[in-house]
Amino acid sequence: MTSSLRFIAVDLGGTQIRAARYTADGVQEARVAMSTGAQDGIDAVLRRLRSAIQQVWAFEGQVAAIGVGAPGPIDFKHGVVRFAPNLPGWFNVPLRDKLLENFSIPIFVGNDADLAALAEHRFGAGQGVSDMIYMTISTGIGGGFIFNNRLYTGGGGLGGEVGHMAMDINGPACRCGNIGCLETLASGTAIARRARARVQGGEPSMLADMLEGDSEITAKEVSEVAQAGDALARDVFAEAGMYIGAAIVSLMYMLNPTMFVLGGSVTKAGDLLFDPIRKTINVRAPEVYRDYTRIVPAKLGGDVGLWGALALCLMELDV
Amino acid sequence: MTSSLRFIAVDLGGTQIRAARYTADGVQEARVAMSTGAQDGIDAVLRRLRSAIQQVWAFEGQVAAIGVGAPGPIDFKHGVVRFAPNLPGWFNVPLRDKLLENFSIPIFVGNDADLAALAEHRFGAGQGVSDMIYMTISTGIGGGFIFNNRLYTGGGGLGGEVGHMAMDINGPACRCGNIGCLETLASGTAIARRARARVQGGEPSMLADMLEGDSEITAKEVSEVAQAGDALARDVFAEAGMYIGAAIVSLMYMLNPTMFVLGGSVTKAGDLLFDPIRKTINVRAPEVYRDYTRIVPAKLGGDVGLWGALALCLMELDV
Repeated sequence: MTSSLRFIAVDLGGTQIRAARYTADGVQEARVAMSTGAQDGIDAVLRRLRSAIQQVWAFEGQVAAIGVGAPGPIDFKHGVVRFAPNLPGWFNVPLRDKLLENFSIPIFVGNDADLAALAEHRFGAGQGVSDMIYMTISTGIGGGFIFNNRLYTGGGGLGGEVGHMAMDINGPACRCGNIGCLETLASGTAIARRARARVQGGEPSMLADMLEGDSEITAKEVSEVAQAGDALARDVFAEAGMYIGAAIVSLMYMLNPTMFVLGGSVTKAGDLLFDPIRKTINVRAPEVYRDYTRIVPAKLGGDVGLWGALALCLMELDV
Repeated sequence: MTSSLRFIAVDLGGTQIRAARYTADGVQEARVAMSTGAQDGIDAVLRRLRSAIQQVWAFEGQVAAIGVGAPGPIDFKHGVVRFAPNLPGWFNVPLRDKLLENFSIPIFVGNDADLAALAEHRFGAGQGVSDMIYMTISTGIGGGFIFNNRLYTGGGGLGGEVGHMAMDINGPACRCGNIGCLETLASGTAIARRARARVQGGEPSMLADMLEGDSEITAKEVSEVAQAGDALARDVFAEAGMYIGAAIVSLMYMLNPTMFVLGGSVTKAGDLLFDPIRKTINVRAPEVYRDYTRIVPAKLGGDVGLWGALALCLMELDV
């Protein structure tokens, strides 16, 4: 009976480990959060992961699977964390096999952005859509692809990295080794960097006062003063939106999804970002692509990682 | 019995209609070719298509399906030619339904580049690979995606257009409406245009003599003098290869296939093009992507369109 089954969802982040127990319908029955303590090393983090899972466990035989979301490139097919920028020392950690030593049930491990895509598809903005691209615009830019109602990560299991599409072949170098990636042009980090540079260059902006004080300019501050009418800040968002819009046009041509779901902290700026995105698409994409593709904001909030780990279990077990 | 089944493959091109009858194993039993005569209008072309199919037909009940490849964006799910640059007047032509009026068997219609991808996957360079990206570099740049052993064209059925990935956001406008598309930077047309401009600008090259005469410079001439050691021509190919290599790196990040198959007339230049492609990938792509991805030339020749139409039938019927 499907209705009696339970699933453990785990979100392994750079600062927090979160775990929860769900029914197949998405009812949360237990939840726990603790500090990741990545500086204590891999074994310490693995002990905390096991402990978090045990704290939300149900009685024996009832738990059908464990889903785990982790940052950085994940070999989705083998459950291996290739490397994780926010987890020092994590190179080729066989996370699934490590957890299988303690829990003898199906365990699935996925990249956090891929799992957010699955979460939005199953429980959020993408319900009922068979082919969807999820983009998360935050400190960096990540993504996940839903093709034919399933997560697609490519033959090597490392796909979905829309942030590393080269958009400006003569542009700035990206930390990934490529040049002019979307992430270097339109992420929260890029928005903050560009605003800072223009203010330091002497352009007038409400941000100037912040720079003189101790406070660091982040995309959040740029968004706040833009909402208050600051021309420079609005312009910086318009530029980021243009890049994201152009990336979406390229993805329309290549993958022709019927929906783009945009999430991540920078999208909280709302129309400041979505207006230039839509404007760019209207100018650059042919009708035949544009008219059948919706661009919508993500619906799920802070627990998207847990929803995604649950959605991963449900997809893999065909529930 | 699969072995007694026959399949009709049709390649509708701007200049020629070709049709052939195949066994499921790819043995060609009959073949016909005729002029498309697109200037005579849609109905005339449809009559010729029907005639070509009838000429290679087997006895009743033996033909399991008809596969048709056509140029331009095709709605793969409904068998509709959205528009075809090489077939004047073809806008939203329901090609599948038109043929179903005469042939009451399963009929499948696909874009020619998508079908070339299927052909290389089933009969050519991509045999045994589950996730493959095909790119054709010719007058324009097109492509097709094989994901999980099947053609993927997106929720709207118009995907695979790798030539319209924006690579240079500040670059030249593309005929598609987007800016700095790969096609405007690295197609045969772009190679010829760039070589011509440099020669006309006074740079020394064997191509200068051709320009003075009546002969038009095409990518073929640029390739020929490059093979003979012409520095300008080699440089133009190196630049095109850099763009294609950078596009491949973006596709690795996003779709992480285990193989790229490169076909089309421009790839006949061989190492002239493949060397700068590989060099760019070696510099820009991380090992974890690069080491598990092969970049190979296409294997099938001029009949790739027919092979693709056959492969489409076999895929759709799960043969």
